[in-house]
Amino acid sequence: MAMYFVSRRFSGGSAIGALRCATFWRPYSTSFREERDTFGPILVPADKLWGAQTQRSLQNFDIGGERERMPEPIIRAFGILKKCAAKVNMEYGLDPAIGKAIMQAAQEVAEGKLNDHFPLVVWQTGSGTQSNMNANEVIANRAAEIIGHKRGEKFVHPNDHVNRSQSSNDTFPTVMHIAASMEINSRLIPNLKQLHTSLNSKSFEFRDIVKIGRTHTQDATPLTLGQEFSGYSTQVKYGIDRVSCTLPRMYQLAQGGTAVGTGLNTKKGFDAKIAAAVAEETSLPFVTAENKFEALAAHDAFVETSGALNTIAASLMKIANDIRLLGSGPRCGLGELILPENEPGSSIMPGKVNPTQCEAITMVCAQVMGNHVAVTVGGSNGHFELNVFKPMIANGLLNSLRLLGDASASFEKNCVRGIQANKERISKLLHESLMLVTSLNPKIGYDNAAAVAKKAHKEGSTLKEAALKLGVLTSEEFDNLVVPEKMIGPSD
Amino acid sequence: MAMYFVSRRFSGGSAIGALRCATFWRPYSTSFREERDTFGPILVPADKLWGAQTQRSLQNFDIGGERERMPEPIIRAFGILKKCAAKVNMEYGLDPAIGKAIMQAAQEVAEGKLNDHFPLVVWQTGSGTQSNMNANEVIANRAAEIIGHKRGEKFVHPNDHVNRSQSSNDTFPTVMHIAASMEINSRLIPNLKQLHTSLNSKSFEFRDIVKIGRTHTQDATPLTLGQEFSGYSTQVKYGIDRVSCTLPRMYQLAQGGTAVGTGLNTKKGFDAKIAAAVAEETSLPFVTAENKFEALAAHDAFVETSGALNTIAASLMKIANDIRLLGSGPRCGLGELILPENEPGSSIMPGKVNPTQCEAITMVCAQVMGNHVAVTVGGSNGHFELNVFKPMIANGLLNSLRLLGDASASFEKNCVRGIQANKERISKLLHESLMLVTSLNPKIGYDNAAAVAKKAHKEGSTLKEAALKLGVLTSEEFDNLVVPEKMIGPSD
Amino acid sequence: MAMYFVSRRFSGGSAIGALRCATFWRPYSTSFREERDTFGPILVPADKLWGAQTQRSLQNFDIGGERERMPEPIIRAFGILKKCAAKVNMEYGLDPAIGKAIMQAAQEVAEGKLNDHFPLVVWQTGSGTQSNMNANEVIANRAAEIIGHKRGEKFVHPNDHVNRSQSSNDTFPTVMHIAASMEINSRLIPNLKQLHTSLNSKSFEFRDIVKIGRTHTQDATPLTLGQEFSGYSTQVKYGIDRVSCTLPRMYQLAQGGTAVGTGLNTKKGFDAKIAAAVAEETSLPFVTAENKFEALAAHDAFVETSGALNTIAASLMKIANDIRLLGSGPRCGLGELILPENEPGSSIMPGKVNPTQCEAITMVCAQVMGNHVAVTVGGSNGHFELNVFKPMIANGLLNSLRLLGDASASFEKNCVRGIQANKERISKLLHESLMLVTSLNPKIGYDNAAAVAKKAHKEGSTLKEAALKLGVLTSEEFDNLVVPEKMIGPSD
Amino acid sequence: MAMYFVSRRFSGGSAIGALRCATFWRPYSTSFREERDTFGPILVPADKLWGAQTQRSLQNFDIGGERERMPEPIIRAFGILKKCAAKVNMEYGLDPAIGKAIMQAAQEVAEGKLNDHFPLVVWQTGSGTQSNMNANEVIANRAAEIIGHKRGEKFVHPNDHVNRSQSSNDTFPTVMHIAASMEINSRLIPNLKQLHTSLNSKSFEFRDIVKIGRTHTQDATPLTLGQEFSGYSTQVKYGIDRVSCTLPRMYQLAQGGTAVGTGLNTKKGFDAKIAAAVAEETSLPFVTAENKFEALAAHDAFVETSGALNTIAASLMKIANDIRLLGSGPRCGLGELILPENEPGSSIMPGKVNPTQCEAITMVCAQVMGNHVAVTVGGSNGHFELNVFKPMIANGLLNSLRLLGDASASFEKNCVRGIQANKERISKLLHESLMLVTSLNPKIGYDNAAAVAKKAHKEGSTLKEAALKLGVLTSEEFDNLVVPEKMIGPSD
Repeated sequence: MAMYFVSRRFSGGSAIGALRCATFWRPYSTSFREERDTFGPILVPADKLWGAQTQRSLQNFDIGGERERMPEPIIRAFGILKKCAAKVNMEYGLDPAIGKAIMQAAQEVAEGKLNDHFPLVVWQTGSGTQSNMNANEVIANRAAEIIGHKRGEKFVHPNDHVNRSQSSNDTFPTVMHIAASMEINSRLIPNLKQLHTSLNSKSFEFRDIVKIGRTHTQDATPLTLGQEFSGYSTQVKYGIDRVSCTLPRMYQLAQGGTAVGTGLNTKKGFDAKIAAAVAEETSLPFVTAENKFEALAAHDAFVETSGALNTIAASLMKIANDIRLLGSGPRCGLGELILPENEPGSSIMPGKVNPTQCEAITMVCAQVMGNHVAVTVGGSNGHFELNVFKPMIANGLLNSLRLLGDASASFEKNCVRGIQANKERISKLLHESLMLVTSLNPKIGYDNAAAVAKKAHKEGSTLKEAALKLGVLTSEEFDNLVVPEKMIGPSD
Repeated sequence: MAMYFVSRRFSGGSAIGALRCATFWRPYSTSFREERDTFGPILVPADKLWGAQTQRSLQNFDIGGERERMPEPIIRAFGILKKCAAKVNMEYGLDPAIGKAIMQAAQEVAEGKLNDHFPLVVWQTGSGTQSNMNANEVIANRAAEIIGHKRGEKFVHPNDHVNRSQSSNDTFPTVMHIAASMEINSRLIPNLKQLHTSLNSKSFEFRDIVKIGRTHTQDATPLTLGQEFSGYSTQVKYGIDRVSCTLPRMYQLAQGGTAVGTGLNTKKGFDAKIAAAVAEETSLPFVTAENKFEALAAHDAFVETSGALNTIAASLMKIANDIRLLGSGPRCGLGELILPENEPGSSIMPGKVNPTQCEAITMVCAQVMGNHVAVTVGGSNGHFELNVFKPMIANGLLNSLRLLGDASASFEKNCVRGIQANKERISKLLHESLMLVTSLNPKIGYDNAAAVAKKAHKEGSTLKEAALKLGVLTSEEFDNLVVPEKMIGPSD
Repeated sequence: MAMYFVSRRFSGGSAIGALRCATFWRPYSTSFREERDTFGPILVPADKLWGAQTQRSLQNFDIGGERERMPEPIIRAFGILKKCAAKVNMEYGLDPAIGKAIMQAAQEVAEGKLNDHFPLVVWQTGSGTQSNMNANEVIANRAAEIIGHKRGEKFVHPNDHVNRSQSSNDTFPTVMHIAASMEINSRLIPNLKQLHTSLNSKSFEFRDIVKIGRTHTQDATPLTLGQEFSGYSTQVKYGIDRVSCTLPRMYQLAQGGTAVGTGLNTKKGFDAKIAAAVAEETSLPFVTAENKFEALAAHDAFVETSGALNTIAASLMKIANDIRLLGSGPRCGLGELILPENEPGSSIMPGKVNPTQCEAITMVCAQVMGNHVAVTVGGSNGHFELNVFKPMIANGLLNSLRLLGDASASFEKNCVRGIQANKERISKLLHESLMLVTSLNPKIGYDNAAAVAKKAHKEGSTLKEAALKLGVLTSEEFDNLVVPEKMIGPSD
Repeated sequence: MAMYFVSRRFSGGSAIGALRCATFWRPYSTSFREERDTFGPILVPADKLWGAQTQRSLQNFDIGGERERMPEPIIRAFGILKKCAAKVNMEYGLDPAIGKAIMQAAQEVAEGKLNDHFPLVVWQTGSGTQSNMNANEVIANRAAEIIGHKRGEKFVHPNDHVNRSQSSNDTFPTVMHIAASMEINSRLIPNLKQLHTSLNSKSFEFRDIVKIGRTHTQDATPLTLGQEFSGYSTQVKYGIDRVSCTLPRMYQLAQGGTAVGTGLNTKKGFDAKIAAAVAEETSLPFVTAENKFEALAAHDAFVETSGALNTIAASLMKIANDIRLLGSGPRCGLGELILPENEPGSSIMPGKVNPTQCEAITMVCAQVMGNHVAVTVGGSNGHFELNVFKPMIANGLLNSLRLLGDASASFEKNCVRGIQANKERISKLLHESLMLVTSLNPKIGYDNAAAVAKKAHKEGSTLKEAALKLGVLTSEEFDNLVVPEKMIGPSD
């Protein structure tokens, strides 16, 4: 019977999907063993560590295929958590032989060594129960092997030992917070910092290059290219601040709330001890959640952090958009920036090099904005003691973290770092501009200045020619007043 | 000619719109005066203080009608800013007679006394220039009158005097930040605090009422109604924290950046002085923006704060949803809460009372989520030195602030405050529940406990009956183990 | 007591809001009359036609202020519906004297004459019951007056006569569909058609102007400006198709479903008759909804139409963005288009004219995208027999319809219609471009063509110079091959 | 050198990511061959068919890892398109030996046999150029092998032969449309139809079960459970209509537009021939796009279809939400439906069975709503002749199609099909309800009926007892009037 189910699973949902990549759990093995849960026996591939509940989920949730598996940071966080739980449970009486085996098996999960044994997709039960059971089953079977027992015999029991004092309802939010915190600290923030540093260096490098400003996409008063980049750099800096501001709530762990937040079936102090253990294991300042009811029933912390990422996405969209427009050309665009050439750009237009890194990161930004809405919808739809959009919320935020982090690194390395100023072009545009007229305002008044600009515009002449013709200034006065280099800051 | 345009404006965009409310700028007056700008002369209603540029905008942007006027907090913030600008400009040489008149006129704007003179809609130029000019024109004309001159004569000049040392490009973001900061501090946070207090009181009031928990919408282990409300209360408390975390960036003012962020045509120190003046005027800790380029070209601060509101919306959606479901009935729902009756609920079903406050606030939450996407899209679409989605971004955030603030107050006053527990119903449900079985786990193990619950479920019996039949426990043991009051926290 | 409530309502929600515009229902009148509902008596302003339930809603839902009143198209649709209901009810035995008076009163509502008597905001009960009762009360009181009775006496009864055979639950979705259908047909589609016509004319006008193409914002092979505009024109044409495709579901009316969709308390055939009456009254092909349960419990038709508007918003965002970038300059941008000058653009930079119509419409597009999310969230959150996000959903779609319709008209009239091609600039850019090299591909192969382009780029030379230096072509061959006018279509 | 890059790629972006699954393109092979493009030579794994440009993209876009590879339906659609292109190109003079080999190689791609040779991620160049080149390179190398040449020798040239008469700019949108159309027709619509059939059967099965209605989550007048399910069934039916309505625009193919839409470097008629070939190959009614400029520069068709999916998501969210609430219990919820038990629900609460299929599909719905925003943002951000959010847009829509299609199937099979009515519970609730009072309205009037209901509510009595006490009806009259079975439709 299980054979039937397994092959159904592997055959995909439709003819079109039939050949989709199905690597590690492709039935190389034709042998199965029996596992068992409260529903009865079920066949499981013999070379896999998972048990009955994982197998049932595989069969009941054929949604999206392998691409949609639970994100790896969640799997690894399960390893961390289960290791810590075993450690704390030993303090409360768990048999040390079993406890140590669990710790060792969990460590393997934390290191990603058992990834192939976590086949479940995001689109399962909304509490993540099945992934929690997947972790419990894999760790129980692996721990049993470590101490010389067979898979499936439940010498180490997934519920009574590995999941001791835990419920999926507090475990899954805990791994969500661990996974997100680690991704933020090890991927997103370092990569944003590198991007910030790089933009800052460019701001310094370009500090003396005076260029035309543009507002409403129209020519405006000048600024330096360095000042322009300082705006970008500030946006990224604030982005780091923004996501950092959300961390105090992300560092709160639900563990110890068990099924509904009350902590039933745990001992007093269990919650604080386990948070301390996770903090030690990860070197991040996790604490036990102040209110476990909130921690299970809502994922506002995820909605909030997703909101910070959404802001960063808006920032990066603006920056990358500017850079591609400033680098547009080579001859018919603005042409102020020279972007690095990383690849041939077009299959039909030879010699064309495209701002592909800007394109990749702006696509990522759009996806982050979309994920944010998904996370928000999921976050708002909890019922009573439990929000059951947990895997989707986790997946959405982790996807955004991964994409934003990776894209920031790629953008920095393959684009920003190599940007050069096209000084000749910048200078040409600046000196053709009419907007230097603004510096005449204080001397000849707004209305006269407007007249000069309009005349030059109409006649295609320079501002100076127009000003002299209108007789509002002498040539000398003009030259003294219209000095772009003096127009890039307030006056004394 | 202007007459033509004016009447076009008043006639609305379509037959359907023809009778839409058109109050204060309805042409009661049939008399007009001429105003003038760099485009030439234009007729303006004689009883209005606005000038030529406002009039042109009215004629060029017939979008959305009166409902879509620039939000009042923006108008008032213009009053505050222009008052402060005059004050600081006097330090830098503005004629005190003119400066004082501007301050007086601006004060009237700040107090909302001249609201009828601000007819422009949100859907205008994306820099808010036209609303800045509207403020400049109204204040200039009013100030001129104060010192005995006529409207339209430009004795007090909208640009040279009222807008001195300013550009729309720094002015509009400044009023955006002032308006949002004031709404947050005077409306949103106080109302959220009141809601938090009220939920907290309920949590205390209900601290001894043990009830069934619900996860996956299914019966789960018990908790107290007070604990359940403590989750809501914590959500609101964190919401206040979330929005407060964004304020440091909201308190940064762009003023002093002028057209592109460089501060051209201002004096050194002008930016800090004006921020200080606004801070004094509003009693809020405004400072000058650290980087003016960022402050003009991006509105990440608004996207960020909108993200905080989005999180609060997700929280309130969850809370209000729970409350209406817990209050569902009167006889065929969960019926655990008794909600205040504020009005007859149905035009056809007599005696029915609906959770209308929950409905109002959840609708508000949906709108806040939508506004957040609008603000995000606008925020991501800046070009070069200027983001030109300013009025939309301002309007979106201010709308969310107003709606969330008002709805929180209404929900608190007309719903939360009056919620009563239906103790009889709560007790009945609790004692019928099968989920008390969980307390048997530590004693008889997971698998036996499951068997007891399944038997009771199948036979429609109580847990105790099932447990005795299965012989896994004595009656005494059962009674000692299954005590809901002992199931609402960890054990010693 | 009512006095207290009334003044509370008028005083606004906070100090800041205290002076917000409060026009027509400002308490000019100091006199009140008593109205009564199942909750008891309540004072109502004597000069207003509304009754007790409206008054209660005013007092219970102090959210958002006057700007947030129920949109006028809803009020007018109530007029249409109640008129038709009276007409049909007379067929089923409603006293003709009362029926005719209701029809006359309802006609006044349909014409917008009684707008001042509809003070309720969107943020009320989620079924729109209070606005339905507002309509019932106003029409009952007005009808009573018409036949010589006093307000408040209920000679014409709001429920028993005006609301006869109706429930808020079928009435409100019916007016939602009527209002949206009318706005689509009388505002959105005509304005989009006008925009399409205008873009089409430009496409024809510019049919012979060959210009550089741009892909990835980089120079690409040429096309005509007319071809470029044909893309815009096609987008708008498909937009009209898109919204039209949704109309079959929008034309389905819920009326006749009464409270839960069963039609309890109506007579057989009532639903079809009332749909026919509304169709006749509006000249739109309304029919009775095929399934009334769906029509009350879900607003998928609104989510769908909002999705069509969202697509149109994406189209218009692209078009307006292109136009402002192509019109960027005057000297330091792309400068291919000359946009109409409608107003002075900047308060500090004289002579600058900004693409303000593009800005207004792109802001509208962002808002439409946001409203779409709000409508979607509301649409997905129905419970059982009733979706209670009705007023928000209605408001969101109607706001989008109004803004998109008005902004399309404004954009067409004040921008598109007046766009001119800067032929000189277009020609200059085209002939400087390197991308004409693509036409060499078929002759000298991809790799050689790439080498020519790269050499010209490196040396700042023309393509021809580079080609000759590399010896891949003769001068004559080059001139024969590189003819932009031959590059704007497939070859024979 | 290439070794360095390759290992960098494989090592992941951060320590945490280091062990992420890297299966099929993990460097089992330590041997490499040299490939070459206009940028020069580069090493490529010897066992892979891809060429230089693919390799560069791998190295330049280390974003998201293997999970983020271009979706398989896109790869397969490339196979279909390239096969058709070769076929049509042979008509226009492509060497038949080469053409046939290309067709054979492309067929292998279409069948998914070469999936392992498509390693690129979504987050690449926004035109999809690199995936187009990936397809060109793989097919060229495979075709060369077929006719006895070596990989990398370019006997079959990726550009000159496989990409002949094509540009990435028309090719990628073409495969987007092919892939989406196939997923809609082979996965989404069949699965929705199955769901519709199943809901319809339930509606029929439950046609005689009268139950309490619920509006505002409160008890309302009765309906049959079959009527309730007919609402769901209608929602799904309209969902199929909605997505079908968008197909005419989805069936338009950009192919033949080449780089900017003009069709440069193609022959007249090429576009129509290739659309016909694709139509034949797929048995779907593809046509050549009416306007190629629109087809490259915008992806409104994707935004539109995504909008249809967004509506379907709103529908399914409502349906699944209702089902889980109606199935809530077992003892403390509404309990009207009995949902199939597919797995043990909780790791701590034995005997509990959760509505996990509802949870999976509602999570999918939230993600679809999020993807829709991402697609919309991408769709609105095109510039000039090309939208460069293509891979993200394609990925977003294809992800939504896959998830919605699979989840609908899973929900149908594992939940809807097995739903049973809990008749006893339904009957109990119905007869306890107060809302049957509505049937008294026509007889005793609204106000009296309200009084009866209020009295019964207050006293906890039945309606009949209250009615008799109030003396408004006799016992007989009551029994004749209050017959739930008569309340489920309009009267004659």
